[in-house]
Amino acid sequence: MDLPPEPAAEFRMHTLATDGAARAGVLHTAHGPLQTPAFMAVATAGTVKAMTAEAVRTTGCQCVLGNTYHLMLRPGGDRIAKQGGLRRFMNWRGPILTDSGGFQIMSLAAIREIDRDGVTFQSHIDGSRHRLSPATCMELQDKFDSTITMVLDECTAFPATPKIAQQSMEMSMRWADLSKQAFRPRPGYALFGIVQGGIHADLRLRSVSMLKSIGFDGYAIGGLAVGEGQAAMLRTLDVTVPNLPHGAPRYLMGVGTPDDILSAVERGIDMFDCVIPTRAGRTARAYTTAGVHNLRNARFADDPAPLDPACDCTACTTHSRAYLHHLFRAKEILGPMLLTWHNLTFYQSLMRGIRSSIMLGQFITHSAQLRASWAASEVAR
Amino acid sequence: MDLPPEPAAEFRMHTLATDGAARAGVLHTAHGPLQTPAFMAVATAGTVKAMTAEAVRTTGCQCVLGNTYHLMLRPGGDRIAKQGGLRRFMNWRGPILTDSGGFQIMSLAAIREIDRDGVTFQSHIDGSRHRLSPATCMELQDKFDSTITMVLDECTAFPATPKIAQQSMEMSMRWADLSKQAFRPRPGYALFGIVQGGIHADLRLRSVSMLKSIGFDGYAIGGLAVGEGQAAMLRTLDVTVPNLPHGAPRYLMGVGTPDDILSAVERGIDMFDCVIPTRAGRTARAYTTAGVHNLRNARFADDPAPLDPACDCTACTTHSRAYLHHLFRAKEILGPMLLTWHNLTFYQSLMRGIRSSIMLGQFITHSAQLRASWAASEVAR
Repeated sequence: MDLPPEPAAEFRMHTLATDGAARAGVLHTAHGPLQTPAFMAVATAGTVKAMTAEAVRTTGCQCVLGNTYHLMLRPGGDRIAKQGGLRRFMNWRGPILTDSGGFQIMSLAAIREIDRDGVTFQSHIDGSRHRLSPATCMELQDKFDSTITMVLDECTAFPATPKIAQQSMEMSMRWADLSKQAFRPRPGYALFGIVQGGIHADLRLRSVSMLKSIGFDGYAIGGLAVGEGQAAMLRTLDVTVPNLPHGAPRYLMGVGTPDDILSAVERGIDMFDCVIPTRAGRTARAYTTAGVHNLRNARFADDPAPLDPACDCTACTTHSRAYLHHLFRAKEILGPMLLTWHNLTFYQSLMRGIRSSIMLGQFITHSAQLRASWAASEVAR
Repeated sequence: MDLPPEPAAEFRMHTLATDGAARAGVLHTAHGPLQTPAFMAVATAGTVKAMTAEAVRTTGCQCVLGNTYHLMLRPGGDRIAKQGGLRRFMNWRGPILTDSGGFQIMSLAAIREIDRDGVTFQSHIDGSRHRLSPATCMELQDKFDSTITMVLDECTAFPATPKIAQQSMEMSMRWADLSKQAFRPRPGYALFGIVQGGIHADLRLRSVSMLKSIGFDGYAIGGLAVGEGQAAMLRTLDVTVPNLPHGAPRYLMGVGTPDDILSAVERGIDMFDCVIPTRAGRTARAYTTAGVHNLRNARFADDPAPLDPACDCTACTTHSRAYLHHLFRAKEILGPMLLTWHNLTFYQSLMRGIRSSIMLGQFITHSAQLRASWAASEVAR
């Protein structure tokens, strides 16, 4: 029997509790819910590196993040569209978010020329020439069938003079407007604007105001975690976040360490993504309730203990630190596989703890306890 | 409540059915049963490359194979003993077999000097000097707590003159005797002798006779699949296998392709191991019911079909050929992970089919059908 297609959910942020500026809730999307504050695993090229989609799900991850720059070059928007979109292509059942590629063009493309209407660049893979404009960027993310589409932005270099930062921000706002005009709205899908302006409070405020006047389903804060340091990042959040619309999700792009996440949630951020847990997992660095361990360290060679006794991931429940150490020393693929699995589980467990503590009105106490336990472990070693 | 330890099973081959020279049965061991004919996945350094232990189990694999040469160098016998043996170290619940390292010393060690009592060699990892004698080889495999221990042997180079092959075989037989003397018998554990003698029928027969007079729990056939070609390998099996004891398992080391396996089962072989399915999985080669596919081939770029519609592995049930193609083009770790999973599932499915057909007395027909379908697919492409 064929069932009628389920009506797509409205894209909607449902706040369940607040604790100071911190908020806990659920983002309803066409492809299922996302509990916030949320950490999205990075799946740049349509795979969370070294993880099956099923393994990513077991970590508690509800939304993954693809990248328009990488995916437009390989396998290409049409190829993904033919396979039914990125979710079907990579077998991800929940919502996905795709970044617009602005950041990667700046950091990866061999040659790029920016003009008022977009950017022309050479692929870092084969040198082929491509063009990304707000309109083509929206079209690509439509082909990916992305649940959450990001506007095309120019990632401002850091450091930048106020004048350069202003020009760059204004270009991004123009592109945000053009992105909105080109975006094809569908029930349960969303378009997010991206606040720019470097570490300049006045520019950030103007950017917020311009984005609000265009109107988006969610607001991202871009151009941070690019070398400005945590203090400058938090100052920027302090001036930016209070001016963002209350009813829409707020996404801090590319951030960060567990400590960064606590600090940003405290300031009202709902969504995060970062390569730290996956990249660290491939380089033997483990995030645990007792701080960061480097599994290549000789002190683990004979250690029969689980990596993190508090963790219920496959690495921690079925193997010893000695085995993980051996895998990294022997350069076995299973090392990165198990440690990525663990780190993503640690991050999702961190987010679960954050959400619970906000519901209980104990976020600040919970944050302080986590930080104290991480610091104590650093000292103990 | 503490239960008394379960009595270790006697190591015993139970033949359920024969069909010509082919046999189907169960090998009972201290660490559980192994249905034969069996294919053992290769876990050289204590991990089946790119697979979690749990994933290996889901393929239907019941016994994995570690390597004494690799494991003695890294992490070392004492380290593995401290972690409770190789099974516990790598979290493998079933039986394990460890190869003695003779083959790897010949193919990997930088410098080696063979004398009557053993071999001295330099590690290919750090140049450190080591010595392996029949006694230390048994001691190491005891530290690994290997369910099935292999005698130390010298892998005869191919090609070799009859005289060289004879000297090498006689050295191996001397080491087999010394291995038997040094082996510590335990209920449910086994020591296998290894028949040598190159492609020389008279040498193989003498080797069999010498091993039988020493007496082993199982008999391996070594020194094949080293460049002699399938025809010479099968001729060697034809003269060797009929002279091996009927009641003991027969293991053809390092073999082989699906076609090799069919040919060897037909001649009475019970056990196999080979790097083909895992190595092929890392290099984009897929074994399927329709022959071998190279997933990097451009013809798969837009192919929405599952890799092998007849297969129930994770790669085939959750992804398209187009996605697997993309993963290999983008050099993503998930490509080798999924394809190794598939290839091992294919091999285990092959063995299940072989066992069933022997039980039904239809092995020859079944073999012919498999070969015809593989050949038809080759022609069709």
